[in-house]
Order: sequence, then C-alpha cells, then structure tokens
Amino acid sequence: MKNIAILSSGGDVSGMNPAIKHFVEYALHNGLTPYFVYNGFEGLIDNKITKASHSDVAGIINRGGTILGSSRSKRFMLKNYREVAKKNLDALDIDMLIVLGGDGSFRGMDIFYKEHGVKFCGIPSTIDNDINGTIYCLGVDTALNVIKDSIDNIRDTASSFSRAFVIETMGRDCGYLALVSSLCSGAELCLIPEVEYNLSSYEDSFKEQIKNGRKYFIVIVSEGIKDNSKEIAEWLEQKVGIESRVTVLGHTQRGGTPSIYDRLMAYKFVNHAIDALLGDINSSVVCYSKTGFIHKDIDEITSQKYMLDPELLSYLKKF
Amino acid sequence: MKNIAILSSGGDVSGMNPAIKHFVEYALHNGLTPYFVYNGFEGLIDNKITKASHSDVAGIINRGGTILGSSRSKRFMLKNYREVAKKNLDALDIDMLIVLGGDGSFRGMDIFYKEHGVKFCGIPSTIDNDINGTIYCLGVDTALNVIKDSIDNIRDTASSFSRAFVIETMGRDCGYLALVSSLCSGAELCLIPEVEYNLSSYEDSFKEQIKNGRKYFIVIVSEGIKDNSKEIAEWLEQKVGIESRVTVLGHTQRGGTPSIYDRLMAYKFVNHAIDALLGDINSSVVCYSKTGFIHKDIDEITSQKYMLDPELLSYLKKF
Amino acid sequence: MKNIAILSSGGDVSGMNPAIKHFVEYALHNGLTPYFVYNGFEGLIDNKITKASHSDVAGIINRGGTILGSSRSKRFMLKNYREVAKKNLDALDIDMLIVLGGDGSFRGMDIFYKEHGVKFCGIPSTIDNDINGTIYCLGVDTALNVIKDSIDNIRDTASSFSRAFVIETMGRDCGYLALVSSLCSGAELCLIPEVEYNLSSYEDSFKEQIKNGRKYFIVIVSEGIKDNSKEIAEWLEQKVGIESRVTVLGHTQRGGTPSIYDRLMAYKFVNHAIDALLGDINSSVVCYSKTGFIHKDIDEITSQKYMLDPELLSYLKKF
Amino acid sequence: MKNIAILSSGGDVSGMNPAIKHFVEYALHNGLTPYFVYNGFEGLIDNKITKASHSDVAGIINRGGTILGSSRSKRFMLKNYREVAKKNLDALDIDMLIVLGGDGSFRGMDIFYKEHGVKFCGIPSTIDNDINGTIYCLGVDTALNVIKDSIDNIRDTASSFSRAFVIETMGRDCGYLALVSSLCSGAELCLIPEVEYNLSSYEDSFKEQIKNGRKYFIVIVSEGIKDNSKEIAEWLEQKVGIESRVTVLGHTQRGGTPSIYDRLMAYKFVNHAIDALLGDINSSVVCYSKTGFIHKDIDEITSQKYMLDPELLSYLKKF
Repeated sequence: MKNIAILSSGGDVSGMNPAIKHFVEYALHNGLTPYFVYNGFEGLIDNKITKASHSDVAGIINRGGTILGSSRSKRFMLKNYREVAKKNLDALDIDMLIVLGGDGSFRGMDIFYKEHGVKFCGIPSTIDNDINGTIYCLGVDTALNVIKDSIDNIRDTASSFSRAFVIETMGRDCGYLALVSSLCSGAELCLIPEVEYNLSSYEDSFKEQIKNGRKYFIVIVSEGIKDNSKEIAEWLEQKVGIESRVTVLGHTQRGGTPSIYDRLMAYKFVNHAIDALLGDINSSVVCYSKTGFIHKDIDEITSQKYMLDPELLSYLKKF
Repeated sequence: MKNIAILSSGGDVSGMNPAIKHFVEYALHNGLTPYFVYNGFEGLIDNKITKASHSDVAGIINRGGTILGSSRSKRFMLKNYREVAKKNLDALDIDMLIVLGGDGSFRGMDIFYKEHGVKFCGIPSTIDNDINGTIYCLGVDTALNVIKDSIDNIRDTASSFSRAFVIETMGRDCGYLALVSSLCSGAELCLIPEVEYNLSSYEDSFKEQIKNGRKYFIVIVSEGIKDNSKEIAEWLEQKVGIESRVTVLGHTQRGGTPSIYDRLMAYKFVNHAIDALLGDINSSVVCYSKTGFIHKDIDEITSQKYMLDPELLSYLKKF
Repeated sequence: MKNIAILSSGGDVSGMNPAIKHFVEYALHNGLTPYFVYNGFEGLIDNKITKASHSDVAGIINRGGTILGSSRSKRFMLKNYREVAKKNLDALDIDMLIVLGGDGSFRGMDIFYKEHGVKFCGIPSTIDNDINGTIYCLGVDTALNVIKDSIDNIRDTASSFSRAFVIETMGRDCGYLALVSSLCSGAELCLIPEVEYNLSSYEDSFKEQIKNGRKYFIVIVSEGIKDNSKEIAEWLEQKVGIESRVTVLGHTQRGGTPSIYDRLMAYKFVNHAIDALLGDINSSVVCYSKTGFIHKDIDEITSQKYMLDPELLSYLKKF
Repeated sequence: MKNIAILSSGGDVSGMNPAIKHFVEYALHNGLTPYFVYNGFEGLIDNKITKASHSDVAGIINRGGTILGSSRSKRFMLKNYREVAKKNLDALDIDMLIVLGGDGSFRGMDIFYKEHGVKFCGIPSTIDNDINGTIYCLGVDTALNVIKDSIDNIRDTASSFSRAFVIETMGRDCGYLALVSSLCSGAELCLIPEVEYNLSSYEDSFKEQIKNGRKYFIVIVSEGIKDNSKEIAEWLEQKVGIESRVTVLGHTQRGGTPSIYDRLMAYKFVNHAIDALLGDINSSVVCYSKTGFIHKDIDEITSQKYMLDPELLSYLKKF
C-alpha cells in the first residue's frame, strides 16, 4: 500500500476542508493510505504527520478554514530543513504530497521534488484568484458570496440614508474579487489595480446622477489600487458632494461555510490531483482552464503574472 | 432607436432578477429602449408590456424570483393568440425578445419567430439543469446552495440523534441537483433517475457501517426515481435497521437571494443574448458550453434529452 | 473539588452546543470538574461519561445539534437501570447533573433524584416551545429563523408564479412556531391546534382578494391541526380557485448555526442552572419567566399543558 | 376616519421595514388611514407625505433598512420649519405620528407636540441599544446576528493560521453589541467603554495560554473604548507575541434581512404605539421593560444615560 499526504500552506481558504475530506475518501478508494501534515511546511519539518481516517473528516465539509492549520514557512526555504522534512516523510514511507496553497508554496514543493524526489501535486487555493495558469482558485466563490452578502447589507443602509459607501475588498495586486463583486452587486464604480483611473473623470456624471435623483453610490475598490479607501471617500465628499463612509471588509472574506461551487471544485481538484500522482505526473499544479482540468508545470505557472480574463475586464468599461 | 423586450416563462428561478436588471442596463448601453413583458407569454397576449428604466430595476439584484412574474401559457400555443401578441408588439415597435425560460418556451418563441419574424434569444433558466445543449442553466447554483444549507442543517440533527434521513430534491427526470448535492454534502447514498439501483445491494455495507460505529446516514434522492422517498425510508428501517425520516425539500429550493455565480452568469447570458440580436443571430438559445458561450438553434436544443456530464456521473460510482 | 455532568435528552436543538461549551467554562470557573454524558440517559446507564476540558468545546459554539448526542431512553424508566446509572455516577463522584431536554426528561431526573439523591437542574430545550412554566425554550429562536428563511424563499417563487403555498411547521400540539412565523412572514392565514377554524369562513375574503389583484397566498399551518396540509391545499384549489403547493419544512427546522438569542440564552440558562446546584436548589427546572429566570419544581412544570401567550394569541385574530 | 403617519429618523436599522409594514396593516385594522413621511423630519418640512396602502408594503418584511428613507434634520430644530411641518400635516388632517428613531428624534417630536399638539409615539430604533428606559431597541438582534456571522467567519481563519484578531463593533459609547457578541462567540477578551481595563493585566495569562497550546485569540472591542483597534493589535504583537489583524466590522452591521426577533418586536412595538395614540397617551416612547411594554415620557428617557444590565455586565468578569 502506498502512502500519500496532504497539507495546506499560505493563507487558508474556505474549501480546504471539503478538499481534505475528499482527499481521505479518494485516497482510500484508490488503495492509498492518507496522511495529514499539520501546520503547512512547518509540520513537515516538525514531523507533525499523522495517519488519517474517515472519522477524522466527519463533519468538516461545511466548515471554513482548514483543520490542518496553515503557515508560511521560512525554514522550508533552507536546504537543511528540507532534508529534515524528507527524513520525516521517509520514516512514514510517504512519497506523494498534495499541497493546497499558492504559487510560492508550489515553487517550494518543486525544489523539494527536484532535490528529494517527493512527488507532489498543487491545488491552487487563494481567495485572490491571482494564480497564473488557472481560471479558478479554491475559495474564490465562497469569498465572493461573503462579500456579496456584506455589500447587500450595506446597500440596505446606503439606500435608506443617502450616502456613498466605499467598500474595500481583498485581492492584493489582483482586482478579481472587486470586479466580480461590482458586477454582481450593481455597484456604481469599481476601481482595480489593473486599470488606470482618474477620479475627476467621474465627477460630472456622478453630480448629474445626484441631480437626477440618485440617493447613494456604492464604490468597490480593490486593496491594491493607488489611492487608499479614505481618499476615495474624501473625493466623494469634497468633489461629488455626498456624505461618504468607508468599509474595509477584512478577514470576514476568508471564512464562511464553503459554497457549493467550492465544495464541488474541491472534489474535482482532489480527484485530478490524486489521479495525476497515480499516473506519471510527478510534479505539477492542477489547473482549471477553459477546456477543463489540466496539469501544468510550476514554471508555466510562475512564468507570468496572472491576467484578468479580457471578457471580464471589458465589463468594467460600462462604469 | 430600437426596442427590445424581456419576459420570464415557466418556473421562476433565482437569477432572473439580476438578468432583468442587467437587461435594462445593457440595452440602454447599446442605445436600445428596454421593455418589460409581465406574466410570461400571457402578458404578450394581454398586452402587459411597459417601457423599463433604471429605476424599475433598482434594488432587485439580490431578490429571488422574477419581478416580471411568470406563467405557463396554453393560449400562446394557438395561432390566433400569437397573432394578438404580434399586434401588441408591433404597436410598440418591438421586434426583439429575450426569453428567460426552458426549452418549451424557446420552442414557442421559435414558432412565433417563423410566423411573425419577431427575433428572440432564449436564456436557459431552470433549477433542474435539464436543458440539452447547455451545461449550465440560470438558477442552478442558488438552488444548490439552498439545498446544501438544508442538508447541513439536517446533518446537525442526524448526527445528534442516530437517525437516517432521506432528503428529496427537485429535478424532475434529471438527477443533477441530487447528484451534486450528494457530492457536496458527504451523503452516504444518492439515487437519481439516470442510474439503475438495487437497494438490497447496499444492505450489507450499511449494516457493516452501523456495526463499525456509524450513527447516521444521509440519503439524497431525486424526485424522479422509481421509489418514492417514503419507500426508501421504510427500506432503511426494515432492512438496514435504523430509524429514518423523510424531508422533501420542496419549493424553498426555488428561492433565495441569487448567489454570486448566478448573478455573474445572468450578467453574461444577457450580454451574449443582446449581442446576438444586435448581430445577425435572429433565433437562438445562448448556451454555456465547455468552451464558452455559444448560440444554438432550438432544434439542436430539443434534438435530444439532456444527459448528465459523464465525469460527474462517474463520481456516483463511489457510493 | 466537586464533579458535575451534563447530558442532552430527547430531540436535539440548536443552542445545545453553546450551552455545553459554557457549561465547561462556568463549571471550571466555579472550581467544579465538568463531565460529559454521551447519548442522553442511555449514556448514564452505559457509562459513557468522560471528563471534559476547554479543548473539548473549542469551535462548537456555532454548530447546531449536540456534540453529546441525544436519545430517548426507555431503559431509564426502569428502576434497575437507574441503579446502574447511579453506580456509574458514584464511581466518578458525580452528584450534580445538568439536563438539556423536555419535561419528560425532567420527570425522569426527578424520580432519579428522589431515589438516589443525584441533584439536577433541567434546562428547557425544544424547538416546539411547549414546556409549561417557561416562556422560552432553548432552540426556538434558531428554528424560527430557519423557518423564516424558508418562507422568504417560498414567497419569492409564490409572488412570481401566482400560486398559494401551504407551509407546514413543526410544533406537535403547540402552534407557537406556526403563529410567530406567520406574524413575521406576513402570511395570509395561520392555522394552529389551539384555535378552532372553519375554512369556509375564509372563502369569500380570499376570492375577493384575488379579484382585487392578489396573486398569491402564504398559509402557514402547524403540524398538529385537524386537517393535513394536502387537504388545506385542496381547499385552496377547489374552493378558492388558486393553484396550490404544499411544503412540509421537516427536519431542516431543527438545525442551523445557533442564533445570537439562543447563544445568549444558553449562556444564561447554564449560569442559572449551575448557580442553583451550588446553592441549595437540588431538583429544579430553570425557567425564563416574564420577570426573569426562576427555578421551578418539576411538578409545577407538568401540572398543566403549555398555553400560548394570550397577547400573541390575540394577534391571530387579524387573520 | 382619522389619519396617522409614520417616519424613520436617524440611523436606519433592520426591523424598520417590518414595522412599516405592520403599521399600515394595524392602522387599517383600526380604521385609520396610514400615511408615509419620507426622509425623516426633512420630509415633514418638504411635504413628502403620501397615503399608504397594503400594496406599498408588499414584499418589504424581509428587507433591511427603511423604504421611507431617513435623515438627521437640522431644520426641524428650528421653530419656523416646525411650523411648516405642522401646516403640511394639517393639510392632510394628520394628527398622529409614529417615529422610528432614537432619543434625539423623540425629543424633537416632544417639542413639536408641545408647540402644535401633534400626538406621537416613539419606537426606539438603534443597533447600539443605548436608549435609556428600554431594554431593547429595534434592530439590535439583527445587528448582533450579522456580527456573529462575521466573527464566526473570522474564527475559521484565525484557528487555521495562528493569529489574533481584534474585531471592532459599532456602539458609540455603549458596549452592548461588543459584550453580547463576545459572550456569544467565545471571544477571549472584550473591551467596552463602560469598564476600565489595563492591557498589561492580561499579558501573563495570554502568554501562558499560548504556551499551553492556544493558537489564536479573538478580541472584541467596542468602537468607544479609549484605545483604537490598531493599538490593541500592536499590544498583542509586541507584548503577547502573536501576529495580529484588525477588522472593523463597519456598516455591514446595520443591514441584513431582519431576524425573527426584530420582526416580532417590530410587530409588537407598532401595536403598542398605535394603541397608545388611540388611547389617551399623546406623547410617549414605547419601551420594552423587564415586565413588558410600557409607555414612558421623553423626560424619563433622557433623564439619564443608558446603563448596561448589571447581570450582563457581571459576565464580563470572566474575561
């Protein structure tokens, strides 16, 4: 019987737990013995590795975060700690790893594979949806639904009280969360790092809308834009002339019970990841492309920055 | 300026309102005058057609159902009523229609187009996800999330009280809702119309699981299977030997605030539908395929029954 | 150090887990050693009793059901099994019990107390809100919020499609859930076991409303009324003349993440229960009355049937 | 037939719409003609007053905010504008007003009543729950449930990633929201304006907990405390030694579909308000006290600052 382990690395997302659950099931279904590594790469080094069974994953499918814990490991960047990790895996006869994480984690695993031959498959997991090579990262749909609920709540009060609201989403350098949230919430303005903007170009239109009866504005901005949210609110107050408030959505975006889409994607990602390792794909990231699931080399993933889908980007024009 | 109307027909779904909102916006964006037809084809005949503006769609993006109302119209199947409908549209200079509905509605529109030249584009809308030619129908994701929440609730009580639960989803002859719900809820058994089953084949395994400590079973069945849910529950009680309850999820599945996925798909479906009518595609259904949005002829849609995705179907085997 | 145990008995409710969590914390805060009894009275007999600590209740505050499991125990009605239970408790030096359950469970505990001197305090826990002597039972608010969401969903589709919906809530002989749900959902009719009704008396009004433009009716019925839900729907179809559908909400009502109100009440119930046992109240049920928390004797609880609050009942008149 | 109007003033809360809905119903039930005043006291001055009917309140019971709009009116503080308001009401024969708002709004109405004899009843409405004389203000329960969901989300990620989270709730000078949220979320620390604190007193305990395996802390602070949230996070990082993040919940707290409790309280508040005006209570605020609903004079309301319930406050000690 072969042994296979799973770990989560980097920022946790909602969808990791369904993936972990299905990992156990699908590994057992394929005659493999599943193992858990706790606390990301740190757990590889500190030997926090335990055999997993059905009962370990009972009742976790509807829970956000990851029962394995996660971390960003600086030690794993060092050769001597990777040797410790290898010894720990050897002691348990584990030579296959599933990694839930981002491109930095996959790069680390790739080095580990080249040094020590531990096969791995990465499952792109980040609410920012900013991993090149895949159009979907685990956790994005749940995050978007949490953001949607927050914006719907804020619109209740915005429309009652004649105010503008500047709502800041996560996303680092990627405007995906902000853009999709805008389209799906009927926001009046969306600002993302990928697109140049000039606030003054909106002033006449916004004032005109107020004159015509508009009572509130919802402005959604991605955390990575050049101005901070307070500055956008000040612009609304001073140039457009409407009382404004800022809401930074913060870490609520990372949690929440996994949505159907994330549960189903978790299921499929895990199937394709284990299938790859049982085939002859030893070092890859399983990506969701427009034509389905494909496995890509880490070099392909990191060869360029993630680019927003042009169709989606074109929708921004309407603002 | 050209005039374009929208109507919803057949069973309502959550996602129609975001589509109606974006219809108004995107029509205006393209220099078209948008119109609403209330109450489905009945409204075409009864001349319930009104000009629409931004203010008509304010605050509807987060509401289930359809503000236009819907219906199943027997009269529209008759030539003389379709002539009345044509006169009503002519009086308002409307020669383009967007139809949110199912294949029956699209078939009706196709006849209307051939008789009277009223161009149309159908947007597949049904929670059953049973329209051939598209892999996604508006409303499915919201319905699945509602079902998921209900099953999560039921598992709370199932795991507390050592009981089996038979949960019946909608879907008519299509097991899509039941199958995806099962994968995403960690159900122990899923029965759908597309796949033959023999209850007795599960008995030994289920009894074995109980002996090994399993306290509850979640069984998800599609409404279209050969046995009714009560019979499944009786089988669990009499043959497997566990106290059982039935929950028929019913019409709660049809409602709920539209999910992100349905809002985004509504946005895209509407864009592609209006683009088609403004191009030279006069009579089509906009379908979501594995390679993106494409327009299909109604004959292609109705040429065969919807078939479940083989990959998805293969997951059923694990049960 | 003194030892105190907790168990859940009868139907589980959402709110038990927050109570169990706070039981551990408040027991430790008071210098007591907390114990869990699994599976209700059955666990007392089968000696499923374990010491509890903070880590056992981490992450349960937001989960429905009860991590202790529950049951209805026939054996505990027999003297010899109660003797076994007593021996098990003695072996662990436990002489105080908190019981989350209904009046049947409290009656059982009272007998046990009189026979063996094991002190107890009952915390009324049932979504039916039908325990005499307390105006609130743990779990009711969460159940009502789940019901509310379901009815809100159904109204989406009812208003879209011109239909009547008969929605059946739980409640056994008590109409509390149905009545409050009706008031809070704007239902057109509410039928409960406590109030005689005559369907024919509504026919003229309902037909009149349809004539004046009403498109849908929401009828909420308690499971305990004389007609079944199908008969109510048939009446709507045949006598009022509107297409009708039945939805039996079922066991989804029992689950869901505990609401704020249930979490806060769980907190307070537990405080008052432990305070009582540490005081000289050896055999009581902690009740929430119009003037706050009070402890009542089991005989007072079972001396009469629960009666709906007259003010609440008077609201029914408007229907 | 007598005429009665309703308006919302000050910050909107979720629960106003159910109150507005029931206002229309209960006014009509009592033979009164209901009117809406839009945009708070501003609408009284600007004569935005319209007759209301059942159809105006269809489908609003599940929506946050207030369909009437709200405002803070400086003009209404001036005698001459109040005279304009009086003229507008006279023109429509309205001499009774229901005001959803806070103590400032009630004070304004009281002056208006004394000057012009327009009878009123105030319904305490603020998520801060800081109105003296009532133990419950409309909107609080919904706000608490929104906060709870956010904290539950954040705990998902906190427990996955070994971090402390400082979560800031609304509440101005009142710690009610923060305190109840803490009790109901299992927070490790709660800081409110009503209670002096000294961060250094927690350091040893927190470090000890980390040493014993605690991976995360949830700290809930009310916006009115002496330190700002960033300072609390810095303390956690520098003195306790755990990576920390701040989340300011912001205006999401004000929205959301009204909870059952707020819908039921809206219903009861409105009943008691209209009953008072139809009785001989001409100038009052309807308060929810420990013994039920009572009407209080505005002077009693504003005679002192709101004080947290001592029992609730005593729970803070455990932190």
